[in-house]
Amino acid sequence: MSLEARVHELAAEITPVDSAAAEQARQRHDRLLKPPGSLGAVEALGARLAAIGGRCPPPVPADPAVVVAAADHGVHARGVTRWPQAVTAAMVASFCAGTAAVNAIAGAVGARVSVLDVGIAAEVGDHPRLADGSVRKRGSLTRAPVRAGTADLSTGPAMTREEAAAALLAGAGMAKELLGGGADLLVLGDMGIANTTSAACLVAAFTGQGPADVTGRGAGSDDDTLARKTAVVAKALALHRPDPTDPLGVLAAMGGLEHAAAAGVSLAGAVEGVPVVLDGVSAGAAALVAVGLAPAVLGYLIAGHRSTEPGASAALERLGLEPVLDLGLRLGEGTGGLLAVPVVIAAARVLTEMGTLEDLATPSGTTTDFA
Amino acid sequence: MSLEARVHELAAEITPVDSAAAEQARQRHDRLLKPPGSLGAVEALGARLAAIGGRCPPPVPADPAVVVAAADHGVHARGVTRWPQAVTAAMVASFCAGTAAVNAIAGAVGARVSVLDVGIAAEVGDHPRLADGSVRKRGSLTRAPVRAGTADLSTGPAMTREEAAAALLAGAGMAKELLGGGADLLVLGDMGIANTTSAACLVAAFTGQGPADVTGRGAGSDDDTLARKTAVVAKALALHRPDPTDPLGVLAAMGGLEHAAAAGVSLAGAVEGVPVVLDGVSAGAAALVAVGLAPAVLGYLIAGHRSTEPGASAALERLGLEPVLDLGLRLGEGTGGLLAVPVVIAAARVLTEMGTLEDLATPSGTTTDFA
Repeated sequence: MSLEARVHELAAEITPVDSAAAEQARQRHDRLLKPPGSLGAVEALGARLAAIGGRCPPPVPADPAVVVAAADHGVHARGVTRWPQAVTAAMVASFCAGTAAVNAIAGAVGARVSVLDVGIAAEVGDHPRLADGSVRKRGSLTRAPVRAGTADLSTGPAMTREEAAAALLAGAGMAKELLGGGADLLVLGDMGIANTTSAACLVAAFTGQGPADVTGRGAGSDDDTLARKTAVVAKALALHRPDPTDPLGVLAAMGGLEHAAAAGVSLAGAVEGVPVVLDGVSAGAAALVAVGLAPAVLGYLIAGHRSTEPGASAALERLGLEPVLDLGLRLGEGTGGLLAVPVVIAAARVLTEMGTLEDLATPSGTTTDFA
Repeated sequence: MSLEARVHELAAEITPVDSAAAEQARQRHDRLLKPPGSLGAVEALGARLAAIGGRCPPPVPADPAVVVAAADHGVHARGVTRWPQAVTAAMVASFCAGTAAVNAIAGAVGARVSVLDVGIAAEVGDHPRLADGSVRKRGSLTRAPVRAGTADLSTGPAMTREEAAAALLAGAGMAKELLGGGADLLVLGDMGIANTTSAACLVAAFTGQGPADVTGRGAGSDDDTLARKTAVVAKALALHRPDPTDPLGVLAAMGGLEHAAAAGVSLAGAVEGVPVVLDGVSAGAAALVAVGLAPAVLGYLIAGHRSTEPGASAALERLGLEPVLDLGLRLGEGTGGLLAVPVVIAAARVLTEMGTLEDLATPSGTTTDFA
């Protein structure tokens, strides 16, 4: 069987989320020991978790994991960022050493960090030295390189369909391994210098929005770089004329290997029935690919935060997802998705642990109508 | 010494936060392993924590505690809510049993729940029965009743100045006990049927905004109740003509015993140099009292979330605080403040645990300028 056929097989395994369980959650929220609706978005999140888990109350996530998919990009040569490509490998070394933002934030929310190399161009060097002896949350590295970075998407396909499928299946494999080891919630993380250019292309392809509407400053481009980047996105769209009904084709033409892997993480998470929390524009682009391959995956997705990158908001709008947080982040690595995890856990615990109005005996011994 | 004099003595103990440490944090953020500014509001929060802790990196909160101050309100008799007053005592029993929203959310973020009775009108009855055998985060109850609920603030002072001072000192005492026992971050929680009426009065007094701008539906008032409530706030303001330069006088005239206690928690937290996280409108009202008594307390406050209650936004605007979360909550109990705690912890861990650009050796062995 071709890799592409295996992707479609994976996508076909996904069953839609359980809308009856979501309705049970909404009804349960109205009976809990609080005024109906008073927990706002936490209640909507709880209903979503019930739908994902297929029961009310939903399972309480106890072992969240972020998968940081990492790869390089041929489009880097077009001057779409001021950072050297070697920073991808250096940052992956930092994830493994536990010195990056994703490690600090994963530590704060009790998540483990799994790094997946699906196509870093350079060798991942030694872990950066630690400035002191403090305990850090180290990331584990899995190597599944498909190729040493994509080709330049502005002059030809970023990769072949089989390569896109291979990277996607590598992501799915990583997710299944984590879930098999006890993880019960997945956060999509990414690392890849120049990958917001590729993400902008994917978002444009799936939303129909123009290059200027989906291309942003990534991690700090100046005006000239932004203009160059937007022009590259426009050129790529004109070259590839992407067909959103062929998600794997769009991914191969303009995507990154880490976007493919993150799409695979999403599909596998949906197959296994766990929540998949999105981070910024790269996760949003990957989610558009995944939903294109299997519309039922959408029900398993939770938008962790609203990145300042315009493509991120365009993707969320297309997906119809309201983000949990809006903190002005634009780092990637899964950082914004991780920060939303405690709210997700709280939403599940509210449905699981709270008493109901029937339990509320007032001192006179009568039960109170709280509503 | 009078209780009022002891309040002023407490207020005088507060030293301003350390703006030099905040500046060090901002500079450190620009050297961490990430593009400058890419963690958005998390960076601003980190700088605030450095100022509060008096050093950079700031202490990482490891033992957060929510103080749920509970009391009743004579203004309940004016029909400002449809809930029976007895619900205050019943909900306190639920906090102690671990069946309320505050318990579920405290459990999700690793916080302990301390309930402080500063004036519940009814006896706190038996804890509600638990529907199943699951482990819940029980709250501990401290009894320090000043009086059995306030008097009706729409016809006279809610309490005497000495009573307001006593409730404030009870809150401060509870906070000091928690901090002495290892707590290192405090969240302001509240319970008191009808207390959003009293909170609206306090917010109006300190912000100068009109009754209609600060009075909301609390936990679900219908149109008639909201109109009655707004009229009561207007009547109280006309009766007491509050002088915001006399915060204890304003508190005695129109406040709740739990607002006084929460103001005391804020002052004690500031004295001890720990972050104090605000919840909704009751916490915001208490913060206005505390800042009125000691302007330096402002630097220790973190706005956990934006409640849907209009008085909450009016208070935050006056305090100049941007909330961490905006999830449409309007429950109180400290729930919104608690949900922000992991973001606060993450902000501290980012400054404490992340490597710097100097640590980032690229594979070629050179150090990369990441900015």
